[in-house]
Amino acid sequence: MDDRQAIERPRARLFVEDTLACDARPMLAPGQAHYLSHVLRLGAGATVALFNGRDGEWQARITEAGGGRCAVVVERCVRAQCDGADLWLVFAPVKRAPIALIAAKATELGVAALWPVFTRHTAVSRVNVGRLRANAIEAAEQCGRLDVPAIIEPVRFAEMMAGWPPDRRLVVCDETGRAPPIAEALSGAARLPKGGGKWALLVGPEGGFTRSELDALGKLPFVTRVGLGPRILRADTAALAGLACWQAIIGDWRQRGEPE
Amino acid sequence: MDDRQAIERPRARLFVEDTLACDARPMLAPGQAHYLSHVLRLGAGATVALFNGRDGEWQARITEAGGGRCAVVVERCVRAQCDGADLWLVFAPVKRAPIALIAAKATELGVAALWPVFTRHTAVSRVNVGRLRANAIEAAEQCGRLDVPAIIEPVRFAEMMAGWPPDRRLVVCDETGRAPPIAEALSGAARLPKGGGKWALLVGPEGGFTRSELDALGKLPFVTRVGLGPRILRADTAALAGLACWQAIIGDWRQRGEPE
Repeated sequence: MDDRQAIERPRARLFVEDTLACDARPMLAPGQAHYLSHVLRLGAGATVALFNGRDGEWQARITEAGGGRCAVVVERCVRAQCDGADLWLVFAPVKRAPIALIAAKATELGVAALWPVFTRHTAVSRVNVGRLRANAIEAAEQCGRLDVPAIIEPVRFAEMMAGWPPDRRLVVCDETGRAPPIAEALSGAARLPKGGGKWALLVGPEGGFTRSELDALGKLPFVTRVGLGPRILRADTAALAGLACWQAIIGDWRQRGEPE
Repeated sequence: MDDRQAIERPRARLFVEDTLACDARPMLAPGQAHYLSHVLRLGAGATVALFNGRDGEWQARITEAGGGRCAVVVERCVRAQCDGADLWLVFAPVKRAPIALIAAKATELGVAALWPVFTRHTAVSRVNVGRLRANAIEAAEQCGRLDVPAIIEPVRFAEMMAGWPPDRRLVVCDETGRAPPIAEALSGAARLPKGGGKWALLVGPEGGFTRSELDALGKLPFVTRVGLGPRILRADTAALAGLACWQAIIGDWRQRGEPE
């Protein structure tokens, strides 16, 4: 049996915190152990795929399962770590269902970080960062990413503006109807002098940005305003649509290749 | 008071079946009457916006509300009917939550029709067409569209292929990693000899298309295969991402203008 045949297609792909290397025995969280042994009913000898955002993806084998425990030993690296596009999604927090959707879909769409920012018209007053991270981990496990987007600590709009890293371009989804169309604006922005390839997409709340927020954004040299067509999009739709267009025009969807 | 001032900004925007014209008294569905009089607590004298997909958008005034009834009289046209892009979304049906999401988001993203098609790997066996239509109507009311996407009767993949109108280009979201990137493919397709501007986006089920389905699609002259990057997208994410890219590169997001 040659090496290629020995790589099995595992039924589960899990994110772990521990270091992954040959013969490592990373800890699985209780929920992961339950999932493997009781939901998927995998026993000793079955394989799982593991990644931790740093060491690539590894094949591991279950050595012991049952009674709420599941132990694994890491066998071999199946994919080397590689980073995706450096794109943040900065968004006004919304209610529980759409914010979970934003976290999951933005992860699939390859964002490096999720940053909830409270604008003037934001209707919710707090964000469950732990739940956002759980949504992102679950989506990362399923979509084949080698990392999980960072969740940046929620702040108010003014603080975001004050601390914005000037080498990161900020693409603002502008629903006033006065911004250039997104494909035109991003094609133009992609030709700008390189800023290290750092980007962010900013999406406002259902009530939109205030005039003063838009004015403040308009004064910044690293801001590109983009329009998303004639219909009124929900905040989550605008976020996902903006990310998809960015990946298609500027990001890693421009390359051909086998799925990761 | 001049005419401009007389246009009020209504708190509700509803889709009705009846003809809209000056002094018409369209029927509201019981759910709409309840929504206006008990949820929004609007009484006689308040205005609502109405559209029916044919006659544009009209201002109507409540003449009587309460006791489960709500009567309105149509006063004036506030927007003339105009049609959006002629883009169908053809998709393998998924479970209840993601299919509702697809219907709502595709409506916001401007599709003219939704067509559920059963492919070989489609995991669900039936589609609630009435519920799909309700999802689409609700989204159309909220996003400012003047029409509601048609729901085309679900069929099997072979029937869809056999009856495909050859003047409608079919953009296939191909997850094999071998299709050209979507921005490149759509930019090329947009320069093709005009086919009347009729388009469709086809998205497969979670399990992907079969080899024979892809082979059948590959033989058709009106098919453009597109890739959506290196990550594995859920079917609903792929549908929304594909529609957003299409609108940005080919559709009505290319125009600048005030929101509808």
